[in-house]
Amino acid sequence: MKATAELQVIPVGSGVSVRTEVMRIVGLLRQHDFILETHAAGTDIEGELADILAAVQQIHQTLHAEGSVRLVSYLKLETRTDKVPTLAGKRL
Amino acid sequence: MKATAELQVIPVGSGVSVRTEVMRIVGLLRQHDFILETHAAGTDIEGELADILAAVQQIHQTLHAEGSVRLVSYLKLETRTDKVPTLAGKRL
Amino acid sequence: MKATAELQVIPVGSGVSVRTEVMRIVGLLRQHDFILETHAAGTDIEGELADILAAVQQIHQTLHAEGSVRLVSYLKLETRTDKVPTLAGKRL
Amino acid sequence: MKATAELQVIPVGSGVSVRTEVMRIVGLLRQHDFILETHAAGTDIEGELADILAAVQQIHQTLHAEGSVRLVSYLKLETRTDKVPTLAGKRL
Repeated sequence: MKATAELQVIPVGSGVSVRTEVMRIVGLLRQHDFILETHAAGTDIEGELADILAAVQQIHQTLHAEGSVRLVSYLKLETRTDKVPTLAGKRL
Repeated sequence: MKATAELQVIPVGSGVSVRTEVMRIVGLLRQHDFILETHAAGTDIEGELADILAAVQQIHQTLHAEGSVRLVSYLKLETRTDKVPTLAGKRL
Repeated sequence: MKATAELQVIPVGSGVSVRTEVMRIVGLLRQHDFILETHAAGTDIEGELADILAAVQQIHQTLHAEGSVRLVSYLKLETRTDKVPTLAGKRL
Repeated sequence: MKATAELQVIPVGSGVSVRTEVMRIVGLLRQHDFILETHAAGTDIEGELADILAAVQQIHQTLHAEGSVRLVSYLKLETRTDKVPTLAGKRL
């Protein structure tokens, strides 16, 4: 099942600037077969629902392995059966 | 890896009242080995990160199979390495 | 106080397609003195914190007055004192 | 206009534990004429839409004045015209 999503991951307690972690997260997402659009409040994702969820797990595991102590993710996830959901189709 | 989460699923276009779908979603969550706390803005979940993500996928697939045309989920997900995250530990 | 934000408004029960309402919401945001960036999962906003919150209230009131029965908004709001928050500064 | 809401405020860069800030935020909310329910992923709020939005602004201003450098808030906001929205009415 295809899905569109938005992911924002906040490292808590790692400093006021979280740019290093954000760059790492986007780098991990780019290893997958997704269409991605980064913006100021997260990264929009188009791909298979199962792959998106697996990427979220991989991001938490990888960042913890690399030293992040606490991570909070905000995931918006959308699926529909009347047509294939795409990022392009949701743009104004 | 243990996680705490909050899940809210909105069926879009199925009517102003979404209580039937919300009851179904909580029923699906209860089939898993989670600690759950329902509240007015979603359901808080404590469990294995992989199991929580699998449950989200199952909920989308099941509700679509049962007739929901469009679903938007809002998932907050938290993991930490300094201690085991629990719902009880986050209560005031 | 300056803020950056992301707003997504979901009309519940108004149909599977919510494009008309989304266009109306963005039109209302454009009447304000904001920097806006629309994307697939909402609209990113840069402006005064008080103005952003006033716009959210205006959107709920206007859409209800125009016939929307139920509205759920998801607002991410960020402020900081070490520098002026901007959408441009959060881009990768 | 009455509304129900959920507010979660994350202080970024203030340490792995944010309990002090969370207690302060709930204390500020309790000064208002709201019905409140705290839970593991935020605080559910019932009250006037304008009052809820004013409280969010007050929380950002107060925590910054007390030393928080960066704050990210996640606000879910719901209004409806077919009946008065209440936290009690959304419980299962």
